[in-house]
Amino acid sequence: MLDIPEEQEKSKNNPSRAYVRDAKAMAATPADVMEYPTSYVFIVDMPGISHSEIKVHVEDENVLVVCGERKREKEKDEKEGVKYVRMERRVGKFMRKFC
Amino acid sequence: MLDIPEEQEKSKNNPSRAYVRDAKAMAATPADVMEYPTSYVFIVDMPGISHSEIKVHVEDENVLVVCGERKREKEKDEKEGVKYVRMERRVGKFMRKFC
Repeated sequence: MLDIPEEQEKSKNNPSRAYVRDAKAMAATPADVMEYPTSYVFIVDMPGISHSEIKVHVEDENVLVVCGERKREKEKDEKEGVKYVRMERRVGKFMRKFC
Repeated sequence: MLDIPEEQEKSKNNPSRAYVRDAKAMAATPADVMEYPTSYVFIVDMPGISHSEIKVHVEDENVLVVCGERKREKEKDEKEGVKYVRMERRVGKFMRKFC
């Protein structure tokens, strides 16, 4: 039996966890892709993420990756005595890959 | 057998169609509701709809309704020779009711 320390198991390098997280992020991020005569336009829904927090890069030479993350301001919320009555909005990663 | 003219069947007044449309709109519109010591804050995801296009009103005295609609610019798209390669983003109504 393998005895994997808990810390290592929780590591961000664990491929299956990363895979699941990315799959969920992609499922939560709808996109339209439009073909113009001389260009492509990508429109991606990432509600609540400001332009400056959205990262765009190219992976493996031909994969366009658009991603961002939405967080709750826990400290601020706790300080101001906020109680969540309803919590439906996605927290975490939004991501799409186009190739 | 009832012979309902097609036009009448397609009417916007048909309650079941309106009900289905609204149920879909509500399912597509996640919201957080936060209780502050002296107020409530409603955060509703309506990606791609500008502030000025979001309507807020009170229904039946105690139901807060937030709604908006997202449309594709068909005429503009057709004029510019656009071809949709992918079309995942919701078109239509976004809505939430709080009571």
